[in-house]
Amino acid sequence: MTEMRTLKVALLGCGNVGAQVARILIEDADALAARTGARLELSGIAVRNVNSKRDVELPQELFTTDAETLVKDADLVIELMGGIEPARTLILSALTNGACVVTGNKALLAQDGPTLYEAADKAGVQLSFEAAVAGAIPILRPIRDSLSGDRITRVLGIVNGTTNFILDQMDSTGAQFADALAEAQRLGYAEADPTADVEGHDAAAKAAILATLSFHTRFALENVHCEGITSVTAADIAAAKDAGFVIKLLAIAEKLTAGGTETDGKDGVSVRVHPTLLPREHPLAAVRGAFNAVFIEAENAGELMFYGQGAGGTPTASAVLGDLVSAARRLVLGGPQRTETTTGHVPALPIDASVTSYYIGLDVADQPGVLARIAQLFAGNGVSIETMRQTIHRDADSNVESAELRIVTHRASEAALAATVEAVKGLDVINSVTSVLRVEGV
Amino acid sequence: MTEMRTLKVALLGCGNVGAQVARILIEDADALAARTGARLELSGIAVRNVNSKRDVELPQELFTTDAETLVKDADLVIELMGGIEPARTLILSALTNGACVVTGNKALLAQDGPTLYEAADKAGVQLSFEAAVAGAIPILRPIRDSLSGDRITRVLGIVNGTTNFILDQMDSTGAQFADALAEAQRLGYAEADPTADVEGHDAAAKAAILATLSFHTRFALENVHCEGITSVTAADIAAAKDAGFVIKLLAIAEKLTAGGTETDGKDGVSVRVHPTLLPREHPLAAVRGAFNAVFIEAENAGELMFYGQGAGGTPTASAVLGDLVSAARRLVLGGPQRTETTTGHVPALPIDASVTSYYIGLDVADQPGVLARIAQLFAGNGVSIETMRQTIHRDADSNVESAELRIVTHRASEAALAATVEAVKGLDVINSVTSVLRVEGV
Repeated sequence: MTEMRTLKVALLGCGNVGAQVARILIEDADALAARTGARLELSGIAVRNVNSKRDVELPQELFTTDAETLVKDADLVIELMGGIEPARTLILSALTNGACVVTGNKALLAQDGPTLYEAADKAGVQLSFEAAVAGAIPILRPIRDSLSGDRITRVLGIVNGTTNFILDQMDSTGAQFADALAEAQRLGYAEADPTADVEGHDAAAKAAILATLSFHTRFALENVHCEGITSVTAADIAAAKDAGFVIKLLAIAEKLTAGGTETDGKDGVSVRVHPTLLPREHPLAAVRGAFNAVFIEAENAGELMFYGQGAGGTPTASAVLGDLVSAARRLVLGGPQRTETTTGHVPALPIDASVTSYYIGLDVADQPGVLARIAQLFAGNGVSIETMRQTIHRDADSNVESAELRIVTHRASEAALAATVEAVKGLDVINSVTSVLRVEGV
Repeated sequence: MTEMRTLKVALLGCGNVGAQVARILIEDADALAARTGARLELSGIAVRNVNSKRDVELPQELFTTDAETLVKDADLVIELMGGIEPARTLILSALTNGACVVTGNKALLAQDGPTLYEAADKAGVQLSFEAAVAGAIPILRPIRDSLSGDRITRVLGIVNGTTNFILDQMDSTGAQFADALAEAQRLGYAEADPTADVEGHDAAAKAAILATLSFHTRFALENVHCEGITSVTAADIAAAKDAGFVIKLLAIAEKLTAGGTETDGKDGVSVRVHPTLLPREHPLAAVRGAFNAVFIEAENAGELMFYGQGAGGTPTASAVLGDLVSAARRLVLGGPQRTETTTGHVPALPIDASVTSYYIGLDVADQPGVLARIAQLFAGNGVSIETMRQTIHRDADSNVESAELRIVTHRASEAALAATVEAVKGLDVINSVTSVLRVEGV
């Protein structure tokens, strides 16, 4: 057997995921060498405090606070510190030195991806980040490689486990948002400060990355319209359930081709995150608990779905290691590297230009002619109604009747739908608009 | 803009998939050039009869019967003729000439994969075959690349759309096998001679390929235990449904570690295809109609599932094009190529060594003590019973009572289970063994 080359691996950060990556690099050293053709030597772990308690027992001598020096001497750098700085500077320094970089830093990629991609291209090294979207699920590589000969038209992703767990709890137990959030926090699925998850910011960063790879055009966080799940009520969930839907927080990236009024004549990509009604028979509807899944529609491949664990130290470490082995193989084989193709220049469309169906819940006066007036108003705004369902409630004490109206529209532009909802609010027969939610998959 | 290199693409075969590949190569030439950095020029299509009617209108001058000459002059060869010869000779000739080869030929790969892999390694060119397993679903590349830093422990695949359609029809309508098959033939999901599909041969070839890539060891068709679905009855399906299961034809590859009696002390991989009971809440249970899905369990990643269309000209063409773009990118970038790592040498285990649960349906005499005798017999063979359920039937005319007994066992070795079933048949209180089916996912 020939002497095997050794590649030095620098690990930046040793949290939940980092500690598992370090453990696997040490425990599975032989298997990884067999896969790559080189020994992957963990040369050090840069942390803020070398004495912090870790999830995994690791050799104390590996720890250092001097990330800069560690990076200078590495063939492969794994960045799992999170946050913008010093992660950004360290990654750029590694790329400039000719090291391949593996990162799971979705916030940094969504905010400053283009700078990183360019630095990697310029240095001719690989920058990979499978762990940044949907944890363990191989999704970025299939989009970049397997679907490279196809045209993706639409991506719908459940990419945040915390919010999927909360919505699933609400759906299965009837709980209110606050109670489901508390349960998620108790079980470790939500952080003490859940803002980044429940407001959709985490999903928005992932949406930007998915859109960038799917449409070969660089999209940043500012191109993503973002709505979280804090205003989703138990009543919304119950009404959706009753109508055969489930509510999921989806990261959506879809190509809209010029089509007259609907897209306002513009060609482009709509990237957005919002609570969405999905038919219960849709493959994404079966994604329960904290699991993630990405549903892709492509011109030739048709419908594809990728399902798995979206978070957790060990599952996410699997994605990091996959990227690492792939980068190491390229280093062993030699030859130039390439990250991704972003040769397209499809503009990001504002939320107004997106085209969806709406679910609208209305509390209306129980008077003759109300349905006709509402239907007329929708038609006048160019929005076609798919289904309209009325339920009468009688208050036992006051004996006053009220009516609940549930409307699902056909696909129409966001602008037309928003105008319709505004106009509906102005009708004297409307007591209140109880919910307005977008619908996909119908 | 710099002058773009042109790569010559030879297409062998112009059936269902081939015609779509040719169409996309012509129609999407600009997009493919943008993705690869080279123009992919379809230099010719080798067919048996240049005047045959095709699914797609293609330039007549592309057609030739001289596959050998076409291959000699190509940078990239796409083999979609199927069958063993002349496909095998043409692929070897292409590889030896230094061309990258993309094929969807599962039969050839399962029978003679090692010869092809070695020829590709020796020539330093890429041999890829995403289309050979689960059509449009990117599954082989994720196994080879994304999961290369993990250890796959188990693969369960619905990899044959015809049989999944038939079983789904039987499950949803209560139809017998013959009627569901006729319906599948009427709709074009099954061929006039359905043997390769319904006997499990097609799934077995795919199981061999999945096992080879998942366990880094070369498995051939002869290592795969294969049972089809022709003996699955409407009664089996109904009983399974009643007990909360669905019957799927699964391609299974799983690692069994030495564990005493259960695996007979042997370490290895069990590769098999057979009708299998799955709990209805298992992600694979929701795979309906002719769709395919592959469920993977890995040590670090946990559970993953890949879902999509397993057949059809256009979806399968998407997988072929993905491989083609990937190979072309490598040619453009230069540097050596590498196919897959098969450095492991895990032996293929015989079916006797596999470990599963069993579902056993028995028609028994309704006498006191019968349940106890059966339970004792299972215990005596080292098979532990998970659930046992008895239903009494009374024939209205004869007034004779009979009892139906449904048993689900805990996991035990195939050998122990087979011995138990044999022993049960010998009991005088057993009228008949109505079904014996393996269970996974519990």
